[in-house]
Amino acid sequence: MASKFRIVLVEPEYEINLGSVCRVMKNFGQKSLYLVNPKCDKAGFDATMFSKHAKDVLQKATVCNSVQDAIEGCELVIGTSGILSRHKHSLRNPLTLPVLAEKLKERKKTGEIALLFGREGIGLSQDETDACGLLVTIPTSRSYPVMNLSHSVAVVLYALCQIRLHTITSAGANEKKHLKLVFNSIVDRYASSLRNPHKIKIAFERVLGRSLVSDKECAALLSALSHAKKELEASRP
Amino acid sequence: MASKFRIVLVEPEYEINLGSVCRVMKNFGQKSLYLVNPKCDKAGFDATMFSKHAKDVLQKATVCNSVQDAIEGCELVIGTSGILSRHKHSLRNPLTLPVLAEKLKERKKTGEIALLFGREGIGLSQDETDACGLLVTIPTSRSYPVMNLSHSVAVVLYALCQIRLHTITSAGANEKKHLKLVFNSIVDRYASSLRNPHKIKIAFERVLGRSLVSDKECAALLSALSHAKKELEASRP
Repeated sequence: MASKFRIVLVEPEYEINLGSVCRVMKNFGQKSLYLVNPKCDKAGFDATMFSKHAKDVLQKATVCNSVQDAIEGCELVIGTSGILSRHKHSLRNPLTLPVLAEKLKERKKTGEIALLFGREGIGLSQDETDACGLLVTIPTSRSYPVMNLSHSVAVVLYALCQIRLHTITSAGANEKKHLKLVFNSIVDRYASSLRNPHKIKIAFERVLGRSLVSDKECAALLSALSHAKKELEASRP
Repeated sequence: MASKFRIVLVEPEYEINLGSVCRVMKNFGQKSLYLVNPKCDKAGFDATMFSKHAKDVLQKATVCNSVQDAIEGCELVIGTSGILSRHKHSLRNPLTLPVLAEKLKERKKTGEIALLFGREGIGLSQDETDACGLLVTIPTSRSYPVMNLSHSVAVVLYALCQIRLHTITSAGANEKKHLKLVFNSIVDRYASSLRNPHKIKIAFERVLGRSLVSDKECAALLSALSHAKKELEASRP
């Protein structure tokens, strides 16, 4: 049984791409399509023609005014990015598709997952990227990295659809929170001599998040850092 | 370095598909395109427009009269098939893409490999399939298995080209090693009172590895932990 995703297209511009996305979604067993401020007509001739035998997917597509509306209720939002340099000012590293596929396999939760695809040519904005829990990228040639929208959807669905969602014991929110508090209190000790203490905390949070840290790993890291915290506080409260 | 393939399209019918194939070929670092009896104009408006920044691939495409001419000189010919039932009278089982990718990785020979893509809708004929040394298939939904030609090319090239993510700024081995050393030295301080210090080190290493920690994140974590290490060592060397 293939995974089900909510495919979200942000401001798709061309009917041919829209129709082609519907077709490839159906090829990979996907039905749930959300369009954020589409710049083309989903009832248009080309959209319909290029959807071929996936006219049902096209007709049932939900039109929204914002990314927030489109991802409402989703437990995990995954943004796609073809151009890594755009995110060079961000601390976030996109995952590769095989790594993401593994992560999804290991997931315990079974809530809906949104896959966000940006505008043709310019992709997702920084705000839209920030709304994503994970980013994924397709490795392409440096000399021509920009893929057609429906090609990106095809590759992402190929890579992610053959997976089952089953359980592992990823760390609970409380365990992670505790670990972060201990790490942050260590950072705070050196706040005056660190260039950007806040960024350090964010980096730790993201590393934990992306690695889908397990409960055992969380406990292991916590035990070491708690000892350090205790000794530091004893020496200089 | 990505693998180089000879992409052979058998009787492609639509300029949009032809142009789109050129674009996705270039996205995956491929340049060698052969067209067997094309039913559309490779110099046509749509072919040119949809090839976008891969007009060079389109213009240099070689037109042939037969599959035999197109695969001339290739050491291995791989046929693609979306519909398995068509080959039910054949003894041949198509490979999946991951299995084929593994086989190609293990290859000792370095001769050219042709990837054959059939006509839109009806694919490769039995004779053309017989000319292939290997067959490969893309697993698609039973309810709508027929993929668009350029989508098939996109998925096959994604799966076989093994392009590395060169632009990603993931932390180098040295940065990670340094961070791990600092973390481990903190763990070692408490070795006698921790249940399993070795496991804690392994947990940290795995979290870093799975998160694909970036160089910036690595530097951020290192700055905080180095401060802690220094203070701890000053208080009790």
